Amino acid sequence: MKILVIGAAGMVGRKLVAALLDAGRVGGRDVAELVLADIIAPEAPKAGLPIATHATDLSDPQAAGKLIEGRPDLIFHLAAIVSGEAEADFEKGYRINLDGTRHLLEAIRLAGLSAPYMPRLVFTSSIAVFGEPLPAEIPDAFPLTPLTSYGTQKAIGELLLADYSRRGFVDGVGIRLPTIVVRPGKPNKAASGFFSGILREPLSGLEAVLPVEASVRHWFASPRAAVGFLLHAAGLDTAGLGQRRSLTMPGLAATVGDEIEALRRVAGEKAVQRIRHEPDPVIARIVAGWPQAFTTRRAEELGFVADRSFDEIIRYHIEDELGGRIG
Amino acid sequence: MKILVIGAAGMVGRKLVAALLDAGRVGGRDVAELVLADIIAPEAPKAGLPIATHATDLSDPQAAGKLIEGRPDLIFHLAAIVSGEAEADFEKGYRINLDGTRHLLEAIRLAGLSAPYMPRLVFTSSIAVFGEPLPAEIPDAFPLTPLTSYGTQKAIGELLLADYSRRGFVDGVGIRLPTIVVRPGKPNKAASGFFSGILREPLSGLEAVLPVEASVRHWFASPRAAVGFLLHAAGLDTAGLGQRRSLTMPGLAATVGDEIEALRRVAGEKAVQRIRHEPDPVIARIVAGWPQAFTTRRAEELGFVADRSFDEIIRYHIEDELGGRIG
Repeated sequence: MKILVIGAAGMVGRKLVAALLDAGRVGGRDVAELVLADIIAPEAPKAGLPIATHATDLSDPQAAGKLIEGRPDLIFHLAAIVSGEAEADFEKGYRINLDGTRHLLEAIRLAGLSAPYMPRLVFTSSIAVFGEPLPAEIPDAFPLTPLTSYGTQKAIGELLLADYSRRGFVDGVGIRLPTIVVRPGKPNKAASGFFSGILREPLSGLEAVLPVEASVRHWFASPRAAVGFLLHAAGLDTAGLGQRRSLTMPGLAATVGDEIEALRRVAGEKAVQRIRHEPDPVIARIVAGWPQAFTTRRAEELGFVADRSFDEIIRYHIEDELGGRIG
Repeated sequence: MKILVIGAAGMVGRKLVAALLDAGRVGGRDVAELVLADIIAPEAPKAGLPIATHATDLSDPQAAGKLIEGRPDLIFHLAAIVSGEAEADFEKGYRINLDGTRHLLEAIRLAGLSAPYMPRLVFTSSIAVFGEPLPAEIPDAFPLTPLTSYGTQKAIGELLLADYSRRGFVDGVGIRLPTIVVRPGKPNKAASGFFSGILREPLSGLEAVLPVEASVRHWFASPRAAVGFLLHAAGLDTAGLGQRRSLTMPGLAATVGDEIEALRRVAGEKAVQRIRHEPDPVIARIVAGWPQAFTTRRAEELGFVADRSFDEIIRYHIEDELGGRIG
């Protein structure tokens, strides 16, 4: 089948494309053709099948129509302005995260007017659709109460996905991803950056700063688990979703202390010694409002599978990013 | 203060304008100037203060900017394509109910860039933001699960209102109105039409058709109560709302049987005899998915007041629409 990946140059997008090519199949069908799009043209991996790449600004009302000209059977929509940037640049966040998503849905609907067309659309939402006051464990059916513009835009995307699916224009699945750890690459200024940093830097022989207390609890998935969610969503029998098209993905609820103990088990005391505790009240206050854990029975019953332990999450990082070697 | 009413030609809009002129004050301040807008120019009531009227298509991106040129202190946004029409004409519903609301919010935000501006915006949402499966009593914090395009558009409006308020662009209050009874005027084809029809027609000496069983339970407010909610929202201290800017309005949970008994008490057996029971399985199925009752503690604690009884709702109709006389 033909597959379109929007946001293919990002961390999760690149890993998803690699996994699609590696497996050669998704949702029980052969991967026959790929169209990869992002704000900068993604690199086309070498593969024995046609791969087109596009530099696309999804906020351009015409852009989505061009991307679906070949009528892909399966579309992954991963493109987004991240939380911090959507908060700093209000207009840009709405332009990409809301208008971009709506343009894509509209392009699909309009394509269906000339000849029947109802692709599977996998949309990445976020646990940022939930904001305090929150229970310690957030149930599957909990109000969308975003406290950021990014979370608002994702919540609106979920509502649009449900309505366009209900009307039969698209076959949508929204998946709310946990915070991804260990995120590869350089440290960034995201308030959540330390969750990855306190593992990634020590594993590469570098110092890392921990700005919060060890008791801080949050909700995690590895990049491998995230790709697994996307692939599973692509093949899901959506009859099981009913009208509620978006699902909180299963994750691992863990404290910063749990992270550190896993690091100690996998990489030893020397790695743990590279973490320096420098309390930052601003970050501590932001993180205090974040979800700590979810019950995700719906997703589990539909076959989505979480990481089993933080040790496993760390080992994945060592295998996938460090060539199996600890620095 | 200057007040803008968008949707001023509709049933609730006209009653709101009359109430504003009658009281001369709202939210503790004098009503100094009115701007009335609707898709057709509203009639300007005779009054001792400046009243401007506009025929405005809110889906035109420039329209909202023109309406707020005089920087109104208080804006009522009541304009909407109703549920049945938004379902029948997908594009029109999104154009007015989603784009129109967003254009208004954007016009307010952009006006604030040149000089500080943060008007109170009262937005009428709907209990259509909730869809089955629903509990018998829907609590204040319940997920937005609309099952119509209209409900989706209202839910998105609530999310936008909350984000624009959080960012300090507007001081928003969203109020989810119950089903309004007794709706004056001619019978219409709305699935909910009979809730008013079985009272309105007999009170005017006409026959009415009841398409469902007497046990059907739903959530109601009189036009007077609806206007009361709008006026109270205009003067509300929004500090009490926190980030959750939209509120389910208090209502009266009543069965069709309760309605009929109230009609008997107020207008006698002769009126009740004018109701003909003609079961309609299509309407029965639609109505079966609707909310039956809510707990509305948040709104009540904030001072919103529901009708006390169905007898009262019927008496309001007789006073306000029939000149005090039963047909």
